[in-house]
Amino acid sequence: MSKQPLSVAVIGAGMAGRSHAAGYRQVNTVFGDGLPPVRLAAVADANTELAEDAARRYGYERAVAGWEEIVDDPTIDAVSIVVGNTLHRSIAEALIRAGKHVLCEKPLAGSMEDAEAMVAAENAADVVTAVGYTYRRSPAITAIRDHVRDNELGEMTLFSGRYWADYACDPQGPLSWRFRGGPGSGALGDLGAHAIDVAEYVCGPIVSVSGGALSTQIPKRPLPLGAVVGHSSAPVSDEMGEVENEDTAVFSARFRSGFTGSFSVSRTASGMPNGLAFDACGVGGRAAFDWHRPAEYVFDDPQPESRTRGARQIIAGPQLPYFAGGYPMEAPGVGGGNAEMFVYQCRAFLDQVTGAPAPLPACASFADALRTMQVVQAVVESSKNDGAAVDIS
Amino acid sequence: MSKQPLSVAVIGAGMAGRSHAAGYRQVNTVFGDGLPPVRLAAVADANTELAEDAARRYGYERAVAGWEEIVDDPTIDAVSIVVGNTLHRSIAEALIRAGKHVLCEKPLAGSMEDAEAMVAAENAADVVTAVGYTYRRSPAITAIRDHVRDNELGEMTLFSGRYWADYACDPQGPLSWRFRGGPGSGALGDLGAHAIDVAEYVCGPIVSVSGGALSTQIPKRPLPLGAVVGHSSAPVSDEMGEVENEDTAVFSARFRSGFTGSFSVSRTASGMPNGLAFDACGVGGRAAFDWHRPAEYVFDDPQPESRTRGARQIIAGPQLPYFAGGYPMEAPGVGGGNAEMFVYQCRAFLDQVTGAPAPLPACASFADALRTMQVVQAVVESSKNDGAAVDIS
Amino acid sequence: MSKQPLSVAVIGAGMAGRSHAAGYRQVNTVFGDGLPPVRLAAVADANTELAEDAARRYGYERAVAGWEEIVDDPTIDAVSIVVGNTLHRSIAEALIRAGKHVLCEKPLAGSMEDAEAMVAAENAADVVTAVGYTYRRSPAITAIRDHVRDNELGEMTLFSGRYWADYACDPQGPLSWRFRGGPGSGALGDLGAHAIDVAEYVCGPIVSVSGGALSTQIPKRPLPLGAVVGHSSAPVSDEMGEVENEDTAVFSARFRSGFTGSFSVSRTASGMPNGLAFDACGVGGRAAFDWHRPAEYVFDDPQPESRTRGARQIIAGPQLPYFAGGYPMEAPGVGGGNAEMFVYQCRAFLDQVTGAPAPLPACASFADALRTMQVVQAVVESSKNDGAAVDIS
Amino acid sequence: MSKQPLSVAVIGAGMAGRSHAAGYRQVNTVFGDGLPPVRLAAVADANTELAEDAARRYGYERAVAGWEEIVDDPTIDAVSIVVGNTLHRSIAEALIRAGKHVLCEKPLAGSMEDAEAMVAAENAADVVTAVGYTYRRSPAITAIRDHVRDNELGEMTLFSGRYWADYACDPQGPLSWRFRGGPGSGALGDLGAHAIDVAEYVCGPIVSVSGGALSTQIPKRPLPLGAVVGHSSAPVSDEMGEVENEDTAVFSARFRSGFTGSFSVSRTASGMPNGLAFDACGVGGRAAFDWHRPAEYVFDDPQPESRTRGARQIIAGPQLPYFAGGYPMEAPGVGGGNAEMFVYQCRAFLDQVTGAPAPLPACASFADALRTMQVVQAVVESSKNDGAAVDIS
Ligand SMILES: NC(=O)C1=CN([C@@H]2O[C@H](COP(=O)(O)OP(=O)(O)OC[C@H]3O[C@@H](n4cnc5c(N)ncnc54)[C@H](O)[C@@H]3O)[C@@H](O)[C@H]2O)C=CC1
Ligand SMILES: NC(=O)C1=CN([C@@H]2O[C@H](COP(=O)(O)OP(=O)(O)OC[C@H]3O[C@@H](n4cnc5c(N)ncnc54)[C@H](O)[C@@H]3O)[C@@H](O)[C@H]2O)C=CC1
Ligand SMILES: NC(=O)C1=CN([C@@H]2O[C@H](COP(=O)(O)OP(=O)(O)OC[C@H]3O[C@@H](n4cnc5c(N)ncnc54)[C@H](O)[C@@H]3O)[C@@H](O)[C@H]2O)C=CC1
Ligand SMILES: NC(=O)C1=CN([C@@H]2O[C@H](COP(=O)(O)OP(=O)(O)OC[C@H]3O[C@@H](n4cnc5c(N)ncnc54)[C@H](O)[C@@H]3O)[C@@H](O)[C@H]2O)C=CC1
Repeated sequence: MSKQPLSVAVIGAGMAGRSHAAGYRQVNTVFGDGLPPVRLAAVADANTELAEDAARRYGYERAVAGWEEIVDDPTIDAVSIVVGNTLHRSIAEALIRAGKHVLCEKPLAGSMEDAEAMVAAENAADVVTAVGYTYRRSPAITAIRDHVRDNELGEMTLFSGRYWADYACDPQGPLSWRFRGGPGSGALGDLGAHAIDVAEYVCGPIVSVSGGALSTQIPKRPLPLGAVVGHSSAPVSDEMGEVENEDTAVFSARFRSGFTGSFSVSRTASGMPNGLAFDACGVGGRAAFDWHRPAEYVFDDPQPESRTRGARQIIAGPQLPYFAGGYPMEAPGVGGGNAEMFVYQCRAFLDQVTGAPAPLPACASFADALRTMQVVQAVVESSKNDGAAVDIS
Repeated sequence: MSKQPLSVAVIGAGMAGRSHAAGYRQVNTVFGDGLPPVRLAAVADANTELAEDAARRYGYERAVAGWEEIVDDPTIDAVSIVVGNTLHRSIAEALIRAGKHVLCEKPLAGSMEDAEAMVAAENAADVVTAVGYTYRRSPAITAIRDHVRDNELGEMTLFSGRYWADYACDPQGPLSWRFRGGPGSGALGDLGAHAIDVAEYVCGPIVSVSGGALSTQIPKRPLPLGAVVGHSSAPVSDEMGEVENEDTAVFSARFRSGFTGSFSVSRTASGMPNGLAFDACGVGGRAAFDWHRPAEYVFDDPQPESRTRGARQIIAGPQLPYFAGGYPMEAPGVGGGNAEMFVYQCRAFLDQVTGAPAPLPACASFADALRTMQVVQAVVESSKNDGAAVDIS
Repeated sequence: MSKQPLSVAVIGAGMAGRSHAAGYRQVNTVFGDGLPPVRLAAVADANTELAEDAARRYGYERAVAGWEEIVDDPTIDAVSIVVGNTLHRSIAEALIRAGKHVLCEKPLAGSMEDAEAMVAAENAADVVTAVGYTYRRSPAITAIRDHVRDNELGEMTLFSGRYWADYACDPQGPLSWRFRGGPGSGALGDLGAHAIDVAEYVCGPIVSVSGGALSTQIPKRPLPLGAVVGHSSAPVSDEMGEVENEDTAVFSARFRSGFTGSFSVSRTASGMPNGLAFDACGVGGRAAFDWHRPAEYVFDDPQPESRTRGARQIIAGPQLPYFAGGYPMEAPGVGGGNAEMFVYQCRAFLDQVTGAPAPLPACASFADALRTMQVVQAVVESSKNDGAAVDIS
Repeated sequence: MSKQPLSVAVIGAGMAGRSHAAGYRQVNTVFGDGLPPVRLAAVADANTELAEDAARRYGYERAVAGWEEIVDDPTIDAVSIVVGNTLHRSIAEALIRAGKHVLCEKPLAGSMEDAEAMVAAENAADVVTAVGYTYRRSPAITAIRDHVRDNELGEMTLFSGRYWADYACDPQGPLSWRFRGGPGSGALGDLGAHAIDVAEYVCGPIVSVSGGALSTQIPKRPLPLGAVVGHSSAPVSDEMGEVENEDTAVFSARFRSGFTGSFSVSRTASGMPNGLAFDACGVGGRAAFDWHRPAEYVFDDPQPESRTRGARQIIAGPQLPYFAGGYPMEAPGVGGGNAEMFVYQCRAFLDQVTGAPAPLPACASFADALRTMQVVQAVVESSKNDGAAVDIS
C-alpha cells in the first residue's frame, strides 16, 4: 500500500456521470488489492450544481465547471468523459495531450470523422484509452459470452438483439442533445451501439449489415428552457425544434463465423424502461438475457433426458463471472444492477492504467468503439441504399 | 336443423391433418347454431394406417389412400388439404374443378408459379377457397390485433416477430419433404409464413422487405427409410441427401403505414419447441405474445399514474375474442391451445361455405396467402441481392 | 367395433356441466380404440335453455329438465352429476339404484353425512363410482407426481399449495349456491378440495392438519333474481342474504411420509382468475406448477455442474403423460387447457365402466373423495379449536 | 460540513458483515447531505484474515480480532453486530454500556431470555438501538407496503409468505452455528424472522399463530475443520454432530386487522438460492414480490375496463421509494440488489444517531425485533402443542 495514489476525475455529472463518480469510489472494494489508493480529485460539469452534488455525494475533492480545469490539473492521472457525444473528441484529445488516461463514454464520438481522429490519437498516445461499454461487465452477459466461446451452444444459428427504451415516447420531452446530429446519432448510436457491442462481445465481429431502416416517430420537440439531465422531463419552450435523428432502427447482420443476426432498437417503445435483451441461438443450445432482469439469464442446453428438457433460469451468484470478489454479499440470489458494472469498469480501466499483472478483461479501446460506430454507420448507409448490404472493413 | 348436412373430408393425416380432422368434428360445438349438421365423410392419406387411425379417432366414415377418391366422391362438399406444400396445387385444382370448397394449408404452394395458378383458380371458381393461417384464430393474437386496429398503442414504432423452432436441430433427423425445394421453402416458408401472416394480420400489409439473409446450419441429412410424420424422428438410411432450403432467415420489413419490422425465423434454434412470438410497440403502448404461453398476452398502456406503470399479463378468458362460445368452460384461466384454433378455423371456413349471415372473420384467401408467399419470395430475392430492398406489389 | 354402444348422460349444464358434455363427445378421439362407440343420450338441467343449448352443441339426443328422467331411462349406462354439491347425494343414490355408473363432481357432497352415505352406496353397488378431480388429468401435474413418486426430488421438504380465485371479489355478485352451507362448504370445499386432492395425488396422504383458520371478507350478498351460471354476474335483488361459508382459509398439513404442507385458498383474491398453484420441494429437487400456465411446469434438479444450475421451464409436449394420444397435434408447445382434462377424465371413467384391460389411471373413487372431505372437515374443526391439530383417520 | 465525523465499526466480517462494512462506506452517497462525514474506524472478526480483508476493501482504518477492542475504543460512536445470534446479547450489552449506538443483526438474539434482556438494555440506554431487517429497505417491498397502507388492495384477504433457501441441502455442509440452538433457531429464526418482519412491515402486527410444524430433513452434519463463512462449504471432519434445530417450518397467522396468513420457511428447498417471496391479496387488488427478482414487483388492481385486466410487472425506478437519491443512475430498469439495502439501512441508522430532522423511516428497534422472536417462539410453542393457537401479546 505504499504505492502512489492514483488521482481520478469525472467530466460530466448528468445521468451517467454520477455512475462513473460512484464507480471510482468503489474500485478498491472489488477484485483484490491490486490497485494503489485512489484519490477522488474532481468532478466537472457545466451545470455546477450537478458537479457539486456529485462531488459531495461521492467524496471528490473539488467540483469545477469547465473540463479544461481537469485537463490543466497536473495532479490528475485518469479521467472519465461522460458528456454528450459531440464533445467527446475535443475533450479526449486535450486530455490525451495532457498525458491523462481516458475512459470515454459510448458512442465514441459524434461523427465518424471525430471517431477516426480519436483512434489516431489513441495510436499516437502513451496513455490508456478506453470506452464505456458497461454491459461487458454484466455477470450474466459474460456468462453467456463464455457459453458461446466454449462452444456450448453448438454451431450458432442466430443472434437476435434489441434495445428498446421509452425515453422519447413523450412528445413533450425536451429536444436535448440526444435528438441532435444526423442519422445514426439517435436511437442507433445511443442504444444500438450497446446492442452491437454486446453482440460482438458475445458472438465475435459483425462483417456486414443489410436491411437498415431508420424511422422517426416524433419529428419535432419543444426546446428546453434550462438544463436537462438524462431522460428527465424539464421545462420547455413553446418553440419546437427538429428532431435530427432516428427514433427507431432495424437491420440484419452477418457475423464473421457465418451466421446471421437480427437487430432492432427504439427510444419510442412504450413501456420499456431499459429493454436491452438478446437471444443467442445455436443448434445445440440457447442463451437469453433481458436487462429488465439483470441478475439472471436463460440457458438451454441439450440434456441426456428429453423428458426434462427445458430452458433454465440461472440466478446470478458466485458461480457467474465478476460476482466472487465483486459483490459485498457473496451468495446467490442477492440481485445486482448497473451500479456494480460501472464499478467493475472503473476498476478494469485503472488496472490497465497501473498495468497490474493480472487485470480484469480490458475495456473496449477507442479502436473497438470505432468498429461499433462503423457498424452504426453501415446501417445508416444501408438505409440510404434501400437496405443493400454494407461491409464492415 | 332441417338443413342439408355438409360433408367434409381431410386430405393428409400427418401432424397437422389430424388437427383438421379433429376440427371439423367440433364445428357445431362452438359459436352457436348457424351451421347445418356436418357429415365427417373421409380422411385420405397415402399412409393408410394414418388415414385409418384418424378416421376412427375423429369419427369419419371412410379412410382412403388417394386424394383422388375425395375428388371423385360427389357427396363431399368441403375438403382440407393438409399434405406437403408441393402437392397443394394439383390437389386444389382438382378439388375446385370438382366443385368442392377448399381449405388448403399454408404456405399456399411449393412455388410462386403454383401459387399464382391457385389464385387464378380461386378467381375462376365458384367455391370457397381458404388457407390455414391458424394463428389468426388465437384469442390473444386477435386481442392484440384489436388493440392495434383501435389505435390503443398510439403511432406504431416497431413490429418484432420471430418463429424459432428446434425441429431440425438433430442432424440425424430424416430428410423429409420440409427440407426439399429451393430457397424460401425451408424455415422461411414453413415458419416465416406464419410470422408474416400474423404480422400483417396485426399491423396491416408489408410493402417492402430488405436485409434478407438465409443460412443453413445442417447441409446434409440422412434419407428416411419409411414414412415420416411431422417432425418426428424416423428410421434413416446411411445415405445422406442435400438439404435444399434454409434453416434460418432474417429480414427487415416496412409496413404500409410506414413503420418497420424485424423478423427472424429458424428451425435450428435449440430448445424452442414452437417459438412463435412477437412484440408490437407503439409510442403509446405495447403488446406482446409468445405461443409458448398461448393463453395469455402482455399489454402495456400508459396509465394516468406513472407510479404503477407496468406491462400486464392478461390471462385468456371470456373477455378475449373467440373465447365466449368457443370454449366449453367459459371462465378465465382455463388454458387453451392450438386444438381450439383449428376448430374455429374449420368453423369459419364452413360458415363461409354456407354463407351464414354473420360468420366469423373469414379465413385467409388464396390471394392473401399468395401475398405471404410474395413476401417470402421478396426475402429470398433480397438475400440474393445482398439485402437490397424488394417491394411487394 | 361391433361392441354395444355405451349411452351417456350429463346432469347439469352450467359452468362445469358443459365440460362434461364436451368431454364424452371426444372420448374416442384419445388413447386408442379401447372403447365401444359412445351414444350421447341426454343432458339434463332444471334450466332447460342451458340443457338444450348443451345438447345441441355437443350432439346429445335429448335435453331434459329433471334429473329423474335420466334415472328412469333404462337405455342410459353412465352419468355425470354436475350440479351444486348438496344435490350430489340424492342424485347419485338414485342413479346407483337404477344401476347406472356415476361420475360425480367434486366435492363429493354437501355434508359429511351425505358423503358417508355415498361411500356406503359405492361399497354396496355394482357400478363404477367416480369423482371429478380433473386436475389429476393434467399432463404437467402428472409429470410432477411422477417425479415425486420416482424420488427425483430427494427427501421431501415441503408442499406449498394454494388455490386463489377472484370469483367472489365483487360484492354485488349474486348469492348463488356456492355461498350456502356451513363452514367448509365455501372456498375450502370448492377450491381447497382441488388443492388437497392435488397434494395427495402428488405427495400421498395427509395424516393431520392444524392451524385451520377461516374468514369471510364479504358477509352479505344480494339475492339473485334468476338463474346464475358458474361465477357469472346476474341480475340481483335489493335484498341481501347471509354468506354462510368462508371466502378464505389457511392451514398446515402433515403428510404420511412426515413432511409438512402449507395451504391457502381464497375466492376473494383479486386478480386471480383461476390460481391453482403449488410447489413441491425436496432436498434434491423442486417442481412447481401454476394453472395460469397450464401447459408448462418448473423442474429443478441438481445438476452435475453447479455453474449452470437453474430451474427449468418444461413446456408440455409428447414427453409428458397424457399428451401422446391425447392431443390432436402431437408436438411440443401447442398449449392445452382444461377442456382436454375433462375429455381424459370421461375416457378414464368409461374405461373403468367397460373394464378395458389397460385403462388409464382410474378416477378418484367416492371413498377417495370422502378423504378430501375429511381433510376439509378437519380444517374446519381445527379452526373451531383455535388451530389445534386434527388427525385424518 | 463542519460537523464532527461519526466513527463506525463493524463486528463480524463474514457473509453479512461485509455488507455492513460496505454499507457505512456509502452512507453519504445517498439521500442528501444530512449526515456528517463518516470515519470508518474498525472491523472486528475472530477470523483476522476476514477482518483484514474487509477493512482493506472497504477502507476501514483498523482490523481487530476481538469485539472487545471495539467496545474499549472511546473514539467509536456506532457499531454493527454481525456475528452468530448467540453472541448478539453480550456484545450489544457491552456496547450499550460503553455508550455506543448499536445496529444488531437479526434475529435479535439466540434465546428469548437474551432478547428480553436486550430490550431491557434498550429501554435503559441513551443510545440508538436498531436491528438489521434489511428487507424493509427494498424499494419494491416498500412500494407494496404503501399500497396496503393506502388501502389500494381493498380489504385484505390473505398474506402468503415464504422464505425458501437451499443452503442446507448438501448433507456434507458443515455443522456451522446456524445448526445449533433449540427449535426456532434454525430456518425459522434465520429465514422465518425475515418473512415475519416483512409480513408485519407490509400488513401490520400478527396477533396469533397456529398450525406450527417444524421438521428436520438432515439430522446430522459433519463438524467443520476450520472457519465457515456464511453458507459456504468448508473442510469437514469425519465426525458427525447433531443438527439442533429445524430445517423447515410452516404456520398460519392472524393479523390484527383480522385476515389470515400462511407461512412456510425452509433451508432445504432445493434450487432456491434466496427465495423470499410473498403475495398480499385483497378483495380489490394484489401485490407480489419475489426476491429472486429484486428490482420488480407484481401489482394488480381493478381497472375500469375488465377487457385489459391483468397483473402488472412494475420495474423498479425513480417512481419507487428509496430509488431517487438512492441509486447512482436515476433511471428505471437499472436493477438493484441487497447491497443498496444495506447502504440505506446504515444511512437510516446513522440518521437516527445524529437525530437529523427528516430521517428515513427508522430501523426496527430491539423491541420490534423481540416481537419477531415472540412470533417465532409462538410458532415453536404451537408446534409443541400440536398446532394449537398461541397469542402474541
Ligand atoms: N454506458 C452507459 O450505460 C451509458 C452511457 N451514457 C453516455 O454517457 C454520456 C453522457 O450521457 P448522459 O449522462 O445521459 O447525459 P446528460 O445529458 O444527463 O449529462 C451530460 C452532462 O454533461 C454536462 N455538460 C455539457 N457540456 C459540458 C461541458 N462543456 N463541460 C462540462 N460538462 C458539460 C451537462 O451539464 C450534463 O450534466 C453520453 O455519451 C451517453 O451516450 C449515458 C447513459 C448510460
Ligand atoms: N397451420 C399450422 O399450424 C400447420 C400447418 N402445417 C401445414 O400442413 C401441411 C402438412 O404438414 P404436416 O402435417 O406437418 O406434414 P406431415 O408430413 O406430418 O404429413 C403429411 C401427410 O401427407 C401424406 N401424403 C403425402 N402424399 C400424399 C398423397 N399423395 N396423398 C395423400 N396423402 C399424402 C403423408 O403420408 C403424410 O401423412 C403442410 O402444408 C404444412 O405446412 C403443418 C403444421 C402446422
Ligand atoms: N372439476 C372442476 O374443475 C369443476 C367442478 N365443478 C363442480 O361442478 C358442480 C357444478 O358446478 P357449476 O357447473 O360451477 O355450477 P353452476 O351453478 O354453473 O351449474 C349448476 C347447474 O345445475 C342446474 N341444476 C340445479 N338444480 C338442478 C336440478 N335439480 N336438476 C337439474 N339441474 C339442476 C342449474 O340450473 C345449473 O345450470 C359443482 O359440484 C362444482 O363443485 C365446478 C367447476 C369446475
Ligand atoms: N440481514 C440479512 O440479510 C442477513 C443477516 N444475517 C445475520 O448476520 C449475522 C451473521 O451472519 P453471517 O454473516 O451469515 O455469519 P458468518 O458465519 O458468515 O459470519 C460470522 C462471523 O463472525 C465471526 N465471529 C465469530 N465469533 C466472533 C467473536 N467472538 N468476535 C468477533 N467475530 C466473531 C466469525 O469469524 C465469522 O466471520 C447473523 O445474525 C445472521 O442472522 C446474515 C445474512 C443476511
